[in-house]
Amino acid sequence: MTQKTAEKLNALLTKASKGPPIRVAIVQPTLEVVIEGAVEAYKKNLIEPVFIGPMQRVAKIAHKAKINLDKFECIDVPHSHAAGAKAVEMANAGKVFTLMKGGQHTDEFLLAILDSTTGLRTDKRMSHCFVIDVPDQKKLFLLTDAAINMAPTLVEKVDIVQNAINFGIALGIKIPKVALLAAVEVINPKMQATLDAAALCKMADRKQITGAIIDGPLAYDNAISAQAAKMKGIDSRVAGHPDILVVPNLESGNMLAKQLIYLADARVAGIVLGAKVPIILTSRSDNVYGRVMSCALAKLYAAYLFALTKN
Amino acid sequence: MTQKTAEKLNALLTKASKGPPIRVAIVQPTLEVVIEGAVEAYKKNLIEPVFIGPMQRVAKIAHKAKINLDKFECIDVPHSHAAGAKAVEMANAGKVFTLMKGGQHTDEFLLAILDSTTGLRTDKRMSHCFVIDVPDQKKLFLLTDAAINMAPTLVEKVDIVQNAINFGIALGIKIPKVALLAAVEVINPKMQATLDAAALCKMADRKQITGAIIDGPLAYDNAISAQAAKMKGIDSRVAGHPDILVVPNLESGNMLAKQLIYLADARVAGIVLGAKVPIILTSRSDNVYGRVMSCALAKLYAAYLFALTKN
Repeated sequence: MTQKTAEKLNALLTKASKGPPIRVAIVQPTLEVVIEGAVEAYKKNLIEPVFIGPMQRVAKIAHKAKINLDKFECIDVPHSHAAGAKAVEMANAGKVFTLMKGGQHTDEFLLAILDSTTGLRTDKRMSHCFVIDVPDQKKLFLLTDAAINMAPTLVEKVDIVQNAINFGIALGIKIPKVALLAAVEVINPKMQATLDAAALCKMADRKQITGAIIDGPLAYDNAISAQAAKMKGIDSRVAGHPDILVVPNLESGNMLAKQLIYLADARVAGIVLGAKVPIILTSRSDNVYGRVMSCALAKLYAAYLFALTKN
Repeated sequence: MTQKTAEKLNALLTKASKGPPIRVAIVQPTLEVVIEGAVEAYKKNLIEPVFIGPMQRVAKIAHKAKINLDKFECIDVPHSHAAGAKAVEMANAGKVFTLMKGGQHTDEFLLAILDSTTGLRTDKRMSHCFVIDVPDQKKLFLLTDAAINMAPTLVEKVDIVQNAINFGIALGIKIPKVALLAAVEVINPKMQATLDAAALCKMADRKQITGAIIDGPLAYDNAISAQAAKMKGIDSRVAGHPDILVVPNLESGNMLAKQLIYLADARVAGIVLGAKVPIILTSRSDNVYGRVMSCALAKLYAAYLFALTKN
């Protein structure tokens, strides 16, 4: 992943680098790239990292990578479970405003977060949202949920959509246009995705979902291309101009995102929405740029959440 | 039922009485009120009745009611099954343009009509539609389906709604406003009626249902009252101004219609839509006025269907 072609993501990064950095718990930073990403995000004025992990081991890795952790807050805990618990405790106490995954497995990382009494759950279902920069496209796409919710029900999709709308607004999109993707743009009673899309649209009409213009079902072609939508005679305020693409299930979202990355030279970053604080769930294979970019997204979203609590 | 308060229905009757009468099969006219209704509709220039039944028995009933059937076409058949079969045969041959039920049971009457090879089915599901004249209301309401489809699926509702729209247009409503009723106006994933309503709205957006402005789910209060809709913050082109009320199931529709008749002094007439010709399915307890009014509706709808076949 290079920074060269990611102009639209970089613009977000520039935006996020303004204002004071937010305190981010770097949970179990036992990989060089995790520490490097956190320090890079610190240098860009995005975050103030709080490293939580087995610090003797972490220090060794940092030393090998020629990174000095002396000026950062470091909290020594015996293992990754303790790191997760400590990070969640700090988030609940308002001492950190984002959690970033380190070298542990995702399931392990999410365990403390999802705990129904001590965790970071809200009344919303948690969902993942990618922000995708496709070269030659005028604007960024948000894609949800390609990482957490496998086959969401209608009730779960309500939260997935609302989370993404809120995130879009946090990133500066005033009234996001949401395309609810399916294999076809018509209602087919045998295709649940088309029925769910119709229900979500009506929920937006009835203000059960707010802040966006929503349309669906839309097939991928007529969601993305105004021309394709026109040829099909689709009268839609979203078709051809979506900000947010909502996929009906994880498989389709995952493949869409990866195809954009591998065949359309797209750059992506993503965070988890719907918890008390943004959660950065980078894959262990993500590079420094992806991690820095995720910190930028988290900072913008955290500012949005903070503004909400003040109102 | 009196004619006095049914101004809006009477206006339809006046409209229908213009132009040449249509040939209507009066199937098994073994009740006085059936013969009387048909003759009255004839006098109002609505229909040219073709009596099909056991004519010796029919003649006796007519004679008792001092009605002379000499000037009408009468087809002698041994029993009600044969009457139904003959009527359907004539409708298929274009010799009658409406079927009207007589003294037999509804199930028996529908048997010949529903026959999948010799009957009068089209690609649409058959459905019933009431036209309701409520005093002090500015316009007529159409109510569907309160008589045939008990617990229609989404696929069946598509036909029920489209049939009613076509019928509304046939009655002179340029772009009918359709309210899809449910117990609530929001999407509740546990209430199928709300999900179906959302799907039907999107189908209208995608032109899978045409000719109308559709909204739903709407609760009865906000469907009927613009004030109630406003108080609930519902932004709808239909709420407060519906032409067509679509009920989610037969029970609710049946009770709505009967309550309007018994407590709101409403006058109603109805026909069956979606077959090759209109079908008048009056109850045996319906009076002459209701039968005449049904003939008027059938004539207007038959004219609409005829115009369609010419295009």
